[in-house]
Amino acid sequence: MMQEEALSSLSSPALLVDLDKVKRNAHRMMERCDKLGVKLRPHMKTHKTLECADIMTGGSRRCIVVSTLAEASFYADNGFDDILYAYCLPFDKVERCAALSERLELFQVLLDHPQALEQLRKRPLSDGRQWHVWMKLDCSNGRAGVLYSNPEALKLAKAIAETDGVELNGVYVHCGNSYNCRGVEEIQAVAKETTSLTLQFMEKLKALGITCKSSIGSTPSCSHPVEDMAQLSEVHPGNYTFYDVQQSVIGSCSLDDVAVRVLTRVIGHCPHRNQLLIDCGWAGLSLDGAGKLPTGYAMIEGHPNLKLSAMTQEHGKVEPISGLLDYSKYPLGTMMTLIPYHSCATAVMHSEYYVFSDGRLQGKWKPTRGW
Amino acid sequence: MMQEEALSSLSSPALLVDLDKVKRNAHRMMERCDKLGVKLRPHMKTHKTLECADIMTGGSRRCIVVSTLAEASFYADNGFDDILYAYCLPFDKVERCAALSERLELFQVLLDHPQALEQLRKRPLSDGRQWHVWMKLDCSNGRAGVLYSNPEALKLAKAIAETDGVELNGVYVHCGNSYNCRGVEEIQAVAKETTSLTLQFMEKLKALGITCKSSIGSTPSCSHPVEDMAQLSEVHPGNYTFYDVQQSVIGSCSLDDVAVRVLTRVIGHCPHRNQLLIDCGWAGLSLDGAGKLPTGYAMIEGHPNLKLSAMTQEHGKVEPISGLLDYSKYPLGTMMTLIPYHSCATAVMHSEYYVFSDGRLQGKWKPTRGW
Repeated sequence: MMQEEALSSLSSPALLVDLDKVKRNAHRMMERCDKLGVKLRPHMKTHKTLECADIMTGGSRRCIVVSTLAEASFYADNGFDDILYAYCLPFDKVERCAALSERLELFQVLLDHPQALEQLRKRPLSDGRQWHVWMKLDCSNGRAGVLYSNPEALKLAKAIAETDGVELNGVYVHCGNSYNCRGVEEIQAVAKETTSLTLQFMEKLKALGITCKSSIGSTPSCSHPVEDMAQLSEVHPGNYTFYDVQQSVIGSCSLDDVAVRVLTRVIGHCPHRNQLLIDCGWAGLSLDGAGKLPTGYAMIEGHPNLKLSAMTQEHGKVEPISGLLDYSKYPLGTMMTLIPYHSCATAVMHSEYYVFSDGRLQGKWKPTRGW
Repeated sequence: MMQEEALSSLSSPALLVDLDKVKRNAHRMMERCDKLGVKLRPHMKTHKTLECADIMTGGSRRCIVVSTLAEASFYADNGFDDILYAYCLPFDKVERCAALSERLELFQVLLDHPQALEQLRKRPLSDGRQWHVWMKLDCSNGRAGVLYSNPEALKLAKAIAETDGVELNGVYVHCGNSYNCRGVEEIQAVAKETTSLTLQFMEKLKALGITCKSSIGSTPSCSHPVEDMAQLSEVHPGNYTFYDVQQSVIGSCSLDDVAVRVLTRVIGHCPHRNQLLIDCGWAGLSLDGAGKLPTGYAMIEGHPNLKLSAMTQEHGKVEPISGLLDYSKYPLGTMMTLIPYHSCATAVMHSEYYVFSDGRLQGKWKPTRGW
């Protein structure tokens, strides 16, 4: 995807981003949501950069979701607003959340427990501002959230809506269980079930006289949305601009849609083990994907018979899936590009991304890090 | 190990370093090497900080080994010298290596292939300086290096020694296979075998009229050195100032010697899954250790019945090894400290470390990153 000449100027390991694919993926998601009539609130956690956020928001710098308060501050400092910090309110960060709430037009927090609501109640915002709160609901998705069938869920929503200084903005559901799917049919079954449970919950809220927004997410479900999702207020996928091997295995995208690579080079020949060494270990790729692919921790582009079988901090061990390596084909210095299993995990390992368009290096993106 | 009051002022997740233990671990390694009569060349790859390097070198800022050229430059920029870049010469970094060689008193590179030697030959250093080269030997350790029994090994050492502008400084062996050991006896068997094969190779070199240094490494073998190691010139362990659960399982140290923790807080109750959620996922801990401990990805200090059973980017799922969780014991906001399985992998995820002494926060260390 990138011109060899442009790549050869880069040190390895390096994270490569195909800007044309990122734009194509972002555009398709916007079109999909427009067509469905649902608002897209893109998640920033995969890339954590300004540039990609601009692409995902169409330059509006509004209506995003983040996974850390470091991301929230980074985007706020750069003119973004309408930010949803979709992470169960961490008690050590209430003061920082309050500061963002008092500074932005619309900073939104999330919670799933009365103890968290109590934290907000104890810290009223200045100038009569309201805490904007989303409640996290678990529709059998297996991560955070009050279980949809638990009576505590309705009770908590009601308590949020009724607490002075606090406003219930929406109900947030993350269908992370869509990552266990294989193929569009299974993805859509999860999307349908999550949507249906969410909408049923919204009906129950309505019966209590409470109206607010609803949002579900995950890249698989939003890559293949079901019609019912049109009845939601928002969706919040995040991985879709980069995608990765995992998403292609799930069925969210084709392998050709994956917009990131890790550039690496051959740095060793180990004929006594029928292996090559490359200069990318887990410090450049992450350990995500262990045991999940026939090609090991990643796919090696253009080399379907090679497997990244093991990694240490700065070394990757590559061996043929079958047969003996012909070392004359891989002199030291040979460049390879790895297609990551999980782009969120790989991107976190890099403090800059090298961005290509039309095969040429366009510049660097610098992500924010930390919490 | 740290006072609760000092911890409660920190945001989580956060990497905590117990300075007293770091100093004790460093002191013990220095004593061990002194007693043995072998020079200690500590490896920087685990922590990548100036402060810990000062502790490991006793303030001399000399005689260190690094795993990336970013580390080499970072230490060189801060007055360190006699730096060994113990990584098979990456062809994209020859020019940066040349610059460091021309600037420092003693910058040393490593190689294991004639193609790499050819790269050095093609880039003579200025002012008649020599490339200082270590040859990497694989004494059945299973990573980089020419296999000790391969005739190419002696041939390459001879070629390095005879090439104009290049000097053979030493033979470098990393007994990474000591990580498969359980207990001192097995560690010492690997240390003994690696030492013996290294010394035999040095004898063969001597017979060819070539003398140079020899070095073996790994934290397990240097934590329990065998007498024969006295005949080596140097040893190069690195993990030992921090240690980790893995090292305690191998038998390099006791669990009490482990000097690092990840501070985390309870952010969710999931009674429908008999789980807690904590605010540390793989972005704060790494995925290293998967499936290797009965307590999951880490040990939760003071909670032997709790298991960190799964992680996503920013969430950890904690469940009891047996029985039902008593949630009243873990209100939201409860602090916990995780003892990492692999401190090298965990440290990489943090851009600052919080350093404690005598239970009180002393300051922050900032590691270098990248390549």
